[in-house]
Amino acid sequence: MGMLTNKQTVRIRWGDCDPAGIIFYPRYLEIFDNAVALLFERMLGITKHEMFKAYEFAGWPLVRVHLQFLKPTRFGNDVDVETGIKFSRSSFDIEHKLSLNGELCVECEERRVWVVRDADNRIKSHSIPEAVLKKFGI
Amino acid sequence: MGMLTNKQTVRIRWGDCDPAGIIFYPRYLEIFDNAVALLFERMLGITKHEMFKAYEFAGWPLVRVHLQFLKPTRFGNDVDVETGIKFSRSSFDIEHKLSLNGELCVECEERRVWVVRDADNRIKSHSIPEAVLKKFGI
Amino acid sequence: MGMLTNKQTVRIRWGDCDPAGIIFYPRYLEIFDNAVALLFERMLGITKHEMFKAYEFAGWPLVRVHLQFLKPTRFGNDVDVETGIKFSRSSFDIEHKLSLNGELCVECEERRVWVVRDADNRIKSHSIPEAVLKKFGI
Amino acid sequence: MGMLTNKQTVRIRWGDCDPAGIIFYPRYLEIFDNAVALLFERMLGITKHEMFKAYEFAGWPLVRVHLQFLKPTRFGNDVDVETGIKFSRSSFDIEHKLSLNGELCVECEERRVWVVRDADNRIKSHSIPEAVLKKFGI
Repeated sequence: MGMLTNKQTVRIRWGDCDPAGIIFYPRYLEIFDNAVALLFERMLGITKHEMFKAYEFAGWPLVRVHLQFLKPTRFGNDVDVETGIKFSRSSFDIEHKLSLNGELCVECEERRVWVVRDADNRIKSHSIPEAVLKKFGI
Repeated sequence: MGMLTNKQTVRIRWGDCDPAGIIFYPRYLEIFDNAVALLFERMLGITKHEMFKAYEFAGWPLVRVHLQFLKPTRFGNDVDVETGIKFSRSSFDIEHKLSLNGELCVECEERRVWVVRDADNRIKSHSIPEAVLKKFGI
Repeated sequence: MGMLTNKQTVRIRWGDCDPAGIIFYPRYLEIFDNAVALLFERMLGITKHEMFKAYEFAGWPLVRVHLQFLKPTRFGNDVDVETGIKFSRSSFDIEHKLSLNGELCVECEERRVWVVRDADNRIKSHSIPEAVLKKFGI
Repeated sequence: MGMLTNKQTVRIRWGDCDPAGIIFYPRYLEIFDNAVALLFERMLGITKHEMFKAYEFAGWPLVRVHLQFLKPTRFGNDVDVETGIKFSRSSFDIEHKLSLNGELCVECEERRVWVVRDADNRIKSHSIPEAVLKKFGI
């Protein structure tokens, strides 16, 4: 089975770029973090903000990230971001492909954990709720 | 005569917000800086990136900013940003009004200077090109 | 009586700067926000993080900010930030002066409100605790 | 032969943290990017800004990054960042270890390319100057 994906177009802004005139690469991670939220929003029909109330959910912290930079992007560029997801029991894998005019510029692979808060308000991993998986057609 | 304005909707993202759960206020200035670029893009039909080639132009650094915070915004909020401009000879005044569901949250007034680069590659103020003003209907 | 002040030196980093090679101005507000935390840390002997437990305190949101930009700064610059405070009953005024080699580059005036959380976990303004004022010698 | 390393302590600031109260992970990449500049600054005795004039040098863009997140950090934390480097001909590998009270929190491995500008002002990879390697004792 392939990945479930979402697509969006993102404008690289002046303030995202460094004195070399290209994007300061931590900004990619901001774009990708938001892309995960948008993917869930599209599938669940509610924002990440609403997810905290609607589900047993306290976030999706990263376990690891792997990034590859193939081509730079510049302010004024409208880049396409395609984000795919694959669920495990209490974690999920994310793949982002950021491209400009059809040319792949950045690839990013993330593993994130679904967490809830325990009685002491501490974060612990938790199986992804059935109701969430259902919305993804799983 | 009133101000020439542009409107956009901006999503407040998770990563824009601080441990109090509300937007970390320097993020507003990132939104407003981009709003100036979008206003010019809409009127000139080219991006800020293209403006550097199309006009005598090396940026619009700020001289001063005044911000008022009336109501906080949170991640997941889709806020409306209305940006107006008023030209002087070599500077312009910007007014941003950021609102949520019709309620004003932030007001921002900026003065920016139109600059070019001199022979030594140093920045100096310059009268705003006629061709630019014309596109704004002035 | 003059203001109570704190001084620090801050390095302007590559990633703080924009394609014009100068600091992207929202970064100043990040520096100034941290400067407020450092001023309190110096006077109270605890970090902002510890203040949430030690005092009736839920933050110091901004009411308004006024910034003036006199000279640009660049990556690699070590700038001096002098931060002064003046208390009112449930708010305080902050003044930041950022300079490079003795030349003033940015001036910033802020008004911030001392807030606590009410029974519904909502933020409301509150008089600044006596124990805090005492540490400032007031 | 082991890696050449530099150490620094970094304060995690309020504005670096997200609504979960922990650091927003793209901020780590900002810390690590600056750590590379500081390592070179310590070994070469000049800032990155001065490197552009002193050497055939136009930056060190990333080819790939791999990050592992072992423990979260919070605002107010003073974390230790140890940065090691290993040179190849026209690229170098960087390893960052970020720890809190002796406990490893984040590991980051980067590959970066040494670039110069060609006659058309375009970036291309270039062998790392002998004069730079010498300062690293190589």
